Amino acid sequence: MTITDIHITPIAVADPPLLNAAGLHAPYALRIIVELVTSDGVSGWGEIPGSAKTFAALEQARDCVIGRSPFDINAITAALGAIAKPEQRTMTPWDQRQWVHVRSAIEVACFDLMGKATGHPVVDLLGGKARERVPFAAYLFYKHAGAGGELEFGSEPTASGWTGARQASALDPDGIVAQAKAMVSHYGFRSIKLKGGVFEPVVEVDSILALREAFGPDVPLRLDPNAIWKLETAIEMGRRLEGVLEYYEDPVRGQEAMGTLAKAIDLPLATNMCTTSFSDLQGSVKWQSESIILSDHHFWGGLRASLELARFCDAFGRGLSMHSNSHLGISLAAMTHLAAAVPNLTYDLDTHYPWQDGHDLVANPLKFEDGAIAVPDAPGLGVEIDRDRLASLHENYLSCGLTDRNDEVEMQKVEPGWTFQPTRW
Amino acid sequence: MTITDIHITPIAVADPPLLNAAGLHAPYALRIIVELVTSDGVSGWGEIPGSAKTFAALEQARDCVIGRSPFDINAITAALGAIAKPEQRTMTPWDQRQWVHVRSAIEVACFDLMGKATGHPVVDLLGGKARERVPFAAYLFYKHAGAGGELEFGSEPTASGWTGARQASALDPDGIVAQAKAMVSHYGFRSIKLKGGVFEPVVEVDSILALREAFGPDVPLRLDPNAIWKLETAIEMGRRLEGVLEYYEDPVRGQEAMGTLAKAIDLPLATNMCTTSFSDLQGSVKWQSESIILSDHHFWGGLRASLELARFCDAFGRGLSMHSNSHLGISLAAMTHLAAAVPNLTYDLDTHYPWQDGHDLVANPLKFEDGAIAVPDAPGLGVEIDRDRLASLHENYLSCGLTDRNDEVEMQKVEPGWTFQPTRW
Repeated sequence: MTITDIHITPIAVADPPLLNAAGLHAPYALRIIVELVTSDGVSGWGEIPGSAKTFAALEQARDCVIGRSPFDINAITAALGAIAKPEQRTMTPWDQRQWVHVRSAIEVACFDLMGKATGHPVVDLLGGKARERVPFAAYLFYKHAGAGGELEFGSEPTASGWTGARQASALDPDGIVAQAKAMVSHYGFRSIKLKGGVFEPVVEVDSILALREAFGPDVPLRLDPNAIWKLETAIEMGRRLEGVLEYYEDPVRGQEAMGTLAKAIDLPLATNMCTTSFSDLQGSVKWQSESIILSDHHFWGGLRASLELARFCDAFGRGLSMHSNSHLGISLAAMTHLAAAVPNLTYDLDTHYPWQDGHDLVANPLKFEDGAIAVPDAPGLGVEIDRDRLASLHENYLSCGLTDRNDEVEMQKVEPGWTFQPTRW
Repeated sequence: MTITDIHITPIAVADPPLLNAAGLHAPYALRIIVELVTSDGVSGWGEIPGSAKTFAALEQARDCVIGRSPFDINAITAALGAIAKPEQRTMTPWDQRQWVHVRSAIEVACFDLMGKATGHPVVDLLGGKARERVPFAAYLFYKHAGAGGELEFGSEPTASGWTGARQASALDPDGIVAQAKAMVSHYGFRSIKLKGGVFEPVVEVDSILALREAFGPDVPLRLDPNAIWKLETAIEMGRRLEGVLEYYEDPVRGQEAMGTLAKAIDLPLATNMCTTSFSDLQGSVKWQSESIILSDHHFWGGLRASLELARFCDAFGRGLSMHSNSHLGISLAAMTHLAAAVPNLTYDLDTHYPWQDGHDLVANPLKFEDGAIAVPDAPGLGVEIDRDRLASLHENYLSCGLTDRNDEVEMQKVEPGWTFQPTRW
């Protein structure tokens, strides 16, 4: 079985006006869908965050996969590595993020193909199920009213349930609790994460305390200020959250500051910002910057690389959970197979999926039941692509005018003069 | 495909009277062969170091594999882990070495089955070939005359070539050079390792210098005193070997001493003694105890675990090579597939195979050409087992009276009163 073609499709999926430390989500989130086609007419699928640079890098990767077997990931990776090197003057050098995105997209599509070729779900090719069901967490955002991508979502301010909550604003503790109740009621999540870094730290701490009040002590809570708090702020807020948070995600910036914070408070720190690649692991050990690494196969270079990260976590006493960006069902399936295969991936995973639910290009998206997804047994990732939907999401991309994520620019549209500050409070 | 049976066969293979820091090799080396049989009549094979304890542990593992798919390695590992815990009072708790041996034997046999089930060589299931040929190193020993296992080898003191060298004594630099020339001439090895820790350190340094004189500067040399030198001895000898050795393997005992030595001399240190499991990695980083880790899938828990170790080595600036014990062709095939799949396994691998060559239970053993083995493309490990030879090697086991490796006892048979000393010189 040889890969004979690669189709690289940038798409844009409606995304609500979610707030975060970097600004505001645009009306569309960008993804890139990679389809590898084999000589026997089978397609394997991958999905990664979208940008014009990543698209260009994937286009350059074409010759690295055509003619190779999907089992030959080492050879494909070596070929990609040769392109990625700056000394290849005929090509634009890639930065680390493009490199891992390209690797991940192609590796996941190869795993989909390997699974289909062998009749096994991807989880089997990663060591088999360590668990039958993969639990996810509710992912809350402060947000403006609206559901993004106006052409698709329209406006139904009177909608109830999760649909209504997805459209409603949530700009204070009450709004966050209402959002949480709608999301948890709809999906059954048993853990809750709040994206912070948006309002004064006391408001965000109050939101967490309101969630605790509303859901009780059995629902683990997490707060992620995206590294824009000063160390002294993070210490002060952390002390208020001791015994309340399951983990405290990236309150401050950088491994050294995280390590200092870890010693000052009695809360596990988690990160997807200070330890985000294998080249950060020496610093992680030096600074003891986190207790929990939030892995992400899109950012660490694929599924097998994530298994390797998991072993590091086990050997160095790190917990392991999973980070998410806005994503659709291919990524959701890849995350599910991977999490099912990692014995020490024991925290409920992050997912943005509810914010895009109903807009998937997957015809048979994996379903949340009681907040968890049953690991599919179909060959490969187990997802079927709706090509009409893929074409429609590509049309969105062409028409929306976005070519990269820039939350600062989006924020300036509603708050002129707003600027991102690496350390705000 | 379900595993329906497991056959665990202890075997004894003729082994020459090789000297090392622990004493003397017995006339037979013990291995255990594990055969997993599936519902469709396919056999998958694994091979590990033999001992009565490991055999008993494997017998206890029977229920962990029967009824499971060979793809379900995580489930099998979890079941083995439940047995291995000391709180399981109905079973004998396993020590760490038995645990990793059992895991490795079963995991390799599962990979053989997965390869056969999917029509792919094991290397494909580990990421595909990072190289077409896996280079090995000559592994020299000081030795007494004789070729071990008298019933099998007989005595041909006039034999020439490698057969003669395998029977001849090698008790000084000249003997070592003669052994090296015979082994290199026969197999084409391009690197040479000398097992030391046997004679006064100056004799062993002189042996290395004699090898350098005989083979020139283009043949990498390694010396392994098996951790029985004092730190000051290792520093003194190390300085004589700067610019001569490719790496200096375990001259002293323990991570702290290795770390101190590493700072004192200008030679890369390698280990398969101070950093031998994932639980040692934190100490490895703390003490910076070695530059190169000699992996061994038998000792680190299998092929996938070895990929995970490889990633640690890459992320923490460690080189990676491979350790060997006396072994036969199943282990040789597993080592070859694994090494082919690990991009950063770039040193020529250790192998004892020449000392057992011709006594293999594999009917189609992998062949060394120019010191390297071409990675086989047949499904699974690509080895066919000669069941008559397996039965004969099992007869050896039953008749030889050995149930565990004890080089000290063997040494006392030729040097009464000899005792192992953890630090001798």
